[in-house]
Amino acid sequence: MKTFQVPVGISNRHLHLSEEHIGILFGAGHQLTRTKDLSQPGQFASEETVTLVGPKGSMPNVRVLGPARKATQVELAATDTFKLGVKPPVRDSGDINETPGLEIVGPAGKVQVEAGTIIAARHIHMTPEDAEKYGLKDGDHVKVQVNGPRAGVLERVLIRVSSNYALDMHVDTDEGNAFGLRNGDLLDVILD
Amino acid sequence: MKTFQVPVGISNRHLHLSEEHIGILFGAGHQLTRTKDLSQPGQFASEETVTLVGPKGSMPNVRVLGPARKATQVELAATDTFKLGVKPPVRDSGDINETPGLEIVGPAGKVQVEAGTIIAARHIHMTPEDAEKYGLKDGDHVKVQVNGPRAGVLERVLIRVSSNYALDMHVDTDEGNAFGLRNGDLLDVILD
Repeated sequence: MKTFQVPVGISNRHLHLSEEHIGILFGAGHQLTRTKDLSQPGQFASEETVTLVGPKGSMPNVRVLGPARKATQVELAATDTFKLGVKPPVRDSGDINETPGLEIVGPAGKVQVEAGTIIAARHIHMTPEDAEKYGLKDGDHVKVQVNGPRAGVLERVLIRVSSNYALDMHVDTDEGNAFGLRNGDLLDVILD
Repeated sequence: MKTFQVPVGISNRHLHLSEEHIGILFGAGHQLTRTKDLSQPGQFASEETVTLVGPKGSMPNVRVLGPARKATQVELAATDTFKLGVKPPVRDSGDINETPGLEIVGPAGKVQVEAGTIIAARHIHMTPEDAEKYGLKDGDHVKVQVNGPRAGVLERVLIRVSSNYALDMHVDTDEGNAFGLRNGDLLDVILD
């Protein structure tokens, strides 16, 4: 059983917006304001936030990540879904067919998106060089060991490979809390 | 590797109160009003709720479980602790030495408890008959396998044995959400 270590990043609820939706929510021609670079090259947290409105409740101050994407995608922890009253599936990023929509409210307007709400499946970003070194390819799944008071194994962790990526594992706040993780913790990937 | 199945129960944030604190919060001589029996014999959800107040925020409508206990104990999911601004450790129920306090507000009064806030360690209740059958004893730890889209293994699951118990595994909402669990799901206990 070979292993290698990966740093973990815990994603709070957030959303990615299309250019069109940025215009509606923040005003025509608006550009997102970068406040913090994220672990993946080119990705950033923006100054902009929105309010999400679901059938059962609303959630203010949800962070928009940049840059703009082709399709708007809202990524929630399962804990959040109960407050909003939506039932999104666990999905890989980008796979939003037949997922629930939400109302998104910004300072300049609002949009009702018909799909795009997911609970993001845990995944590891890596470069083609990393993938070759570890004998992995895009779309593989691995197990990851967590130690400490809430020890356990995360199974079905998706491997995502791109030359635009940096080595980092992404989980959501429910997973981070359930396993007692902190940002930057180094976890052991188990290669069977 | 032998195994047996255990039903899971997902505990939302809740608290247990001493007789003294019930009197302060709900009025002298007040008795908790049973609304629903819980999985463990004699334990019940009550009609009564309180507001928890921490350094960073408050949380209304937190359920009181009955009957009264010797010491007040507040059990939170890690997700809750960020809203309140408290940093409780992961602890077995009853082990509240050097844990943070909180302000608890009820309809008749409020108390500032100096300790008693924990994130409950996951555990399995069972009878002495079950324990004998599976070769386990009180204080043992086991692993539990979860299948499905958020598959994984919960390690360090405490075994608690008493003739007052019924076979049931308790996790909190963070753990339930991170593993995609629903109340009553049957999980496989792994006996090495």
